[in-house]
Formats: sequence, C-alpha cells, structure tokens
Amino acid sequence: MFDLVLSNVRVDRAITDVGISNGRIAAIAPGLDHTGAVVEDCDHALLLPGLVEAHTHLDKTLLGMDWVENTLGPEIREKIDNERQMKRVVGLDAARQSARQVVMSIAKGSTAIRSHVDIDTENGLADFEGVSATRSRYSDVIDIDIVAFPQSGLVSRKGTAELMDEALRQGADVVGGLDPCSIDHDPKGHLDLVFDLAVKHAKPIDIHLHEPGELGMFSFRMILERTRAHGLSGKVTVSHAFSLGANDYLGISRLLDEIAAAGVALMSTGPSMVPVPPLIRALDAGITVCSGTDGMRDLWAPFGNADMLERAQILSQRNNLSQDIEIERAVDVCTYGGAKVMGLADYGLAVGAFADLVVVAGRNVTEAVVTLPPRKLVLKRGRVVARDGQALVEAP
Amino acid sequence: MFDLVLSNVRVDRAITDVGISNGRIAAIAPGLDHTGAVVEDCDHALLLPGLVEAHTHLDKTLLGMDWVENTLGPEIREKIDNERQMKRVVGLDAARQSARQVVMSIAKGSTAIRSHVDIDTENGLADFEGVSATRSRYSDVIDIDIVAFPQSGLVSRKGTAELMDEALRQGADVVGGLDPCSIDHDPKGHLDLVFDLAVKHAKPIDIHLHEPGELGMFSFRMILERTRAHGLSGKVTVSHAFSLGANDYLGISRLLDEIAAAGVALMSTGPSMVPVPPLIRALDAGITVCSGTDGMRDLWAPFGNADMLERAQILSQRNNLSQDIEIERAVDVCTYGGAKVMGLADYGLAVGAFADLVVVAGRNVTEAVVTLPPRKLVLKRGRVVARDGQALVEAP
Ligand SMILES: [Zn+2]
Ligand SMILES: [Zn+2]
Repeated sequence: MFDLVLSNVRVDRAITDVGISNGRIAAIAPGLDHTGAVVEDCDHALLLPGLVEAHTHLDKTLLGMDWVENTLGPEIREKIDNERQMKRVVGLDAARQSARQVVMSIAKGSTAIRSHVDIDTENGLADFEGVSATRSRYSDVIDIDIVAFPQSGLVSRKGTAELMDEALRQGADVVGGLDPCSIDHDPKGHLDLVFDLAVKHAKPIDIHLHEPGELGMFSFRMILERTRAHGLSGKVTVSHAFSLGANDYLGISRLLDEIAAAGVALMSTGPSMVPVPPLIRALDAGITVCSGTDGMRDLWAPFGNADMLERAQILSQRNNLSQDIEIERAVDVCTYGGAKVMGLADYGLAVGAFADLVVVAGRNVTEAVVTLPPRKLVLKRGRVVARDGQALVEAP
Repeated sequence: MFDLVLSNVRVDRAITDVGISNGRIAAIAPGLDHTGAVVEDCDHALLLPGLVEAHTHLDKTLLGMDWVENTLGPEIREKIDNERQMKRVVGLDAARQSARQVVMSIAKGSTAIRSHVDIDTENGLADFEGVSATRSRYSDVIDIDIVAFPQSGLVSRKGTAELMDEALRQGADVVGGLDPCSIDHDPKGHLDLVFDLAVKHAKPIDIHLHEPGELGMFSFRMILERTRAHGLSGKVTVSHAFSLGANDYLGISRLLDEIAAAGVALMSTGPSMVPVPPLIRALDAGITVCSGTDGMRDLWAPFGNADMLERAQILSQRNNLSQDIEIERAVDVCTYGGAKVMGLADYGLAVGAFADLVVVAGRNVTEAVVTLPPRKLVLKRGRVVARDGQALVEAP
C-alpha cells in the first residue's frame, strides 16, 4: 500500500513505477500495486531528484514590482552601493520578494534553496528577517538555508560582524563572506572573522569569491589554510571562484587538487562573460560542485529564471559539453552536488530517500535539459507542490 | 481604411495603434480608424520588427526525429566528418527537417532566415535541394536565403567548387566558406575560389571563421584584402570570428576599424565557451553585426531553440550587458543587423515598411528579452503567421 504511485515514469533509462509512502520513496519497480494509492500517470516522462538551487539571493529580486531601468556600470562595488541604497527607495520588501522567487523556484522543480541574504549596517537584519519569514511560510514545501552575507563588507564596515553574529543566533544556517582582498582590503581580517563565526556557531561557510586570476587564487589558498586549521572539511563552499578559470593548466590543476584534499566545495553558475572553474576537471579532481541562479531580476542585472534545469544547460554550454553523458554530469551538479553542499539527508532516487522529486517530459536527461519543458509534477516529501509548470502554493 | 490594425501596441515606449495595408505599415498613431479593418488588440504588448535569424543550418537539425546519443569529442573536424557520414545513416531528410525548423522559427517570430546548407562530394546537392523545396513551400510566410556552404572543405575536396557553382546557378543566394587555414590548409586557394564564385554569380559571401587568435586574424585580413580588391563592401559577412575575442586591445581595435572600413559585417551567436568579438566595441566601430542560432539539435550538439529574442539575451549575457539601453542594442543586432546583412528592403518599424512584425508581452524591450514570453502575434507582409507561440503553418 502506497500513498502515491508515479506510474510509467522513466528512471535510469527504463520505464517503471515509483511508490511513495510517508513522504519517502518506498519502491521502484514496474507494475506496483496501485490499490488505495493516488496514481499519477507520468506518461513516460523522466524522474529526477528535486533540483537544488544552491546559490541565490532571495532578498533581492524585483519580481512582480515596477520596472527599474538599469543604468549601472559593470563594477561590483558600484552595484553593491547602488543596491544597498536603492532597495528601500524602490520598496524592496524582502519577505514579499523572497516569497515570489520561492514560488517560482517550486514551479521549476527546486525542492531546496540556499540563499545568501544581505546583512549590513544600513539595513540591519531587515532582509534576514524577511527571508526568515518566507522560510517559515513555505517550510512544508521547500527547504531553505539562509547564509548571513556581508554584501557591503565585513572588516571595512564596523558593526556588520555583530549583526551577522546576531543573525546566526536567530537561525541563519551558514556564514557568508566575499572577496576578502578586493572588498575589505584585509583578507586576513575578513577570513578570520568568517571562520571565527563559523566555529563559534558550529555552522558551515559559503564565500563569494569573484576575485580574478592570481588575486583570487591567493584568497582561495587563505580559505584552504583556515579550512584545514579548523578541521572544516565538508563544511566550506567557495562560490564563483572565477580565478579557477585562469588559463594556467599546471597552477589550476594543483589548486584543484588542494581544494579536493581540503574538502572544499565549489559553486559555479556557468556565467558566459567571465572565466569559470573548469567543471569536468573539478569533478574529476573529486571536488563537490553545486550551482545556482545567483541574483535574478534584481538591481544588478535583469536576467534569471530560477530554473535549475536551465542552469544545467547553461553550465553545459559554458563548459563545452555536448555529449549526453557530459550533460548528465551537469544535471548531477544541479541535483546531487547541491544536496551534498546543503547537507540534505536521504536525498536521491533510491528506496528510503525522501520523495523530493521532479517529473519532466523527455526521452532522456539530455532532452529535458535541451527542451526545458514545464515541470509536469514537483513533489516535496511526497506531496505534489507544482503541476504542469504551476506551483500549488501562492505567492504574495 | 486599413486591412489590419494592431491596437494598443507599444512602440518606442508609447502605446499606439499600427495600421497595415497591402502588407505594409500604413500608419503609426493612437486612435486609428478601425472601420473595415481586422483589429488585433495587443493589450499593451511590445511591437518589434520581425526577428532575423541570420545564421543557421536548416539542413542539419534532428527536430522530431529519433534521439541520437552524442558521443563525439570537441574537434570541429571530427564533428564535420561524423555528420557527413551519419546524416544519411540516421535518415536526415533536409526538406523535412528544414521545414520543421522553419516552422519553429516562425512561431518564435523570425520573418527572415539565412541558412548555410552543406555541399560536399558525398551528398552532392541533396541538402541544397531539400532546403530549396522548403524555401518554396514557405515563400509567402518567411524569407529564406541559402548559403552554398562547403562544410567538408573546398580546395581539399575536389569537385566541391563545381557543386557550389551549380547550386549558385540553381538559386543559392550566398557563397559560403570556412576556416581557410585550418580546414583546407590553403587560405589563398580557398578564398580565391570563394571570391571568384561571388564575382561570377554577383552574389554576397558569408564565411565561417572559427580560427582562433592570430590565425583567425590572419585569415580575416586575407578576407579584407579580397573584399577591397573586388569592391565588395557591404557584401561580405564573417561568421563567428572568434579571433576577435582575443585579449589584445590595440590589435583588435585596429582590426575592427579595418573591418568597418572594408564594409564587412560580423555574425556572432554569443557562445559561452569560446572567445567572441566584443559586441559593443564592434558596433561602436561602425560594423554591422547580426546573429543567429547556428546549428541546433543536430549531430554536433543538442542545444538550440531558434529563438532570436533568446539570442539577444545570450548575446547580452555573453557581452556583460545589463543596462536597458545596452540590451536594446543586442535586440537591434537580432533585427536591424540581420536585415541589413540579408539586404532586406523596406524593413523596420516605420510607415512604408513591410509589415514583418512581432508582438510580444513586455513593459519594455528588456523585459521581453528577460522573460521570453510566447510570441503573441507574428506577421509576415501583414498576414498573421503565428499566434500565442504557435505557427499557423504546418510542419511535416
Ligand atoms: Zn551571489
Ligand atoms: Zn554555422
């Protein structure tokens, strides 16, 4: 007896049934007993584990708001300062906006999200509180990790560390950081604060590292030193790591091996305008890699769809993957890789795992990545939370 | 009296009406007389000139066919040889397949297509004949230019030049070429043949130039020499031109000025995995730039949607454009740039121009590029050829 049976669904190239009981996968086999179960005929669509949005900024999106014309230059610092000041001017309410993006993510098949949330001395904990409210509101339909993120600087903006400490006390899950050289101009000070907060609160770390070339490699090695010194293998993620896109085969290969040995994970969105870590080399080195939408439709730039299947396409194209087996590895990044980084227990397509699942049309994984059909079904703990591209939960 | 009125449509940031008579735009003004006209209420959606797919390969797509697993390496030569041999093995019928892609393009709002079509000594003119049949079949709903394209080599594959000559006699519109150094290993021989065919048939030229760095810059200058010598300003396009993505500010700036002075156009798809010509610098130099989908869902790689509005998004992201006015320039590339390269007469959003138009939801151009809604209406010569994302012509 199952609560729910997904019938005629494609798992690992075969058509089968998946029986779900008590929010978990109870059986994967053809011809399961449908007695007493709700049956969803999947019509040979593909089953994937729930997509994992492992890097976004739920507090920033302008989804559903008045259009804000973008007239900014390309500098990160300009975008940061503009955003910190403009978010209140344009009326960016983090609770409302994060809820809108969460509902969009659910519609696209994400069953877990890690979101960085700005913490600074101008806006205090307002954004953190807004995203926390959204996390509570949708707690039964999606897992949300909150990273306390010092977007405007940490050492260089006195009072930010205390606010991050308070956010971590109030339930932020991860300690954030960014560009210790180029933002704070004090890599030792910045990273010591980040790691001290992580040790104090026994929480993992996720650091934005946009710094390019040798500068980014320098900062990365300072992160590795502290990861080893504090015994934080498996607890540290470096996001973007554009420096690993440098054209330096030997130098990058050695650094990738050090990253793997230190147990540090990478997050890459596969952006097209900057160098990126070489995905297949990083995976082959044994590094856990996850991905995400990053900021979407915000004051930085207008793009983004919160679709982690589209992200697998973007990652594939950025890394020149055209073989089916290569593209499947990009999908693994957007599922298993994110799950590992977020520490999601009992994740995957196996009996006993939580029924966090996506059903999507496709003769195989690659075709789904290429065509990006509306998600036929999205399940969270065995409950249908989206159908035919529409979330079954409401956005404000 | 108009045949058709698009009412409440957004043109240049204002809501207005557009009156269409005899296949042309007859008036653009609010409150036009609707008497006797078919009226399409556009509900404040945006009006764009018909999108121009200025570089694709209609003869290659596998759309609607059995899935072919891709197991190829990244080398262009390997992909070329595999395709030439496999297209008959998998039953790739160029007439049927090109028709399928054309219908997809119409649904996405393209009103003109330039397609390269393979010509080689193994398959002869079969693909050219297939795409020619498709051109005739859809001649009243879309303009199609055919480029006679020596994909497998020209000098190095005896008999190909004669086949191209024959195709040009039978109605191919453009002389193609590719990688004169790396494919034929004879840049002089290759380019002399291409330019001689162009002069003989009084037809324009479009050359694939994947060659990177200094090699591609060398080939590009040989193309410029011949363009000047034959007085072919405005008649030559170089597609891809990855060499212009080299990190050589002075060298590339000088070459861009030479390209502009010679009246040679560029085609860039904005790929994420290779260097690309700097879009804004090329436009600022005065170069005509167009774009295209290139090969899609074919034996080279599985991706591609035949959506030139999505292409504007890809171009924008690849070139780090996030300002609204920058993104509008990317849309111009996918409309006016392509029209100029294809020599489309009376093109654009002006009274007297042909009514080749797209209506798409969006508060402004950037929002349409970001959200890519299904096209509300597509008009060719004033006739509705697609509605709500569906073409009104049939594919085989
Ligand atoms: Zn980020
Ligand atoms: Zn091409």
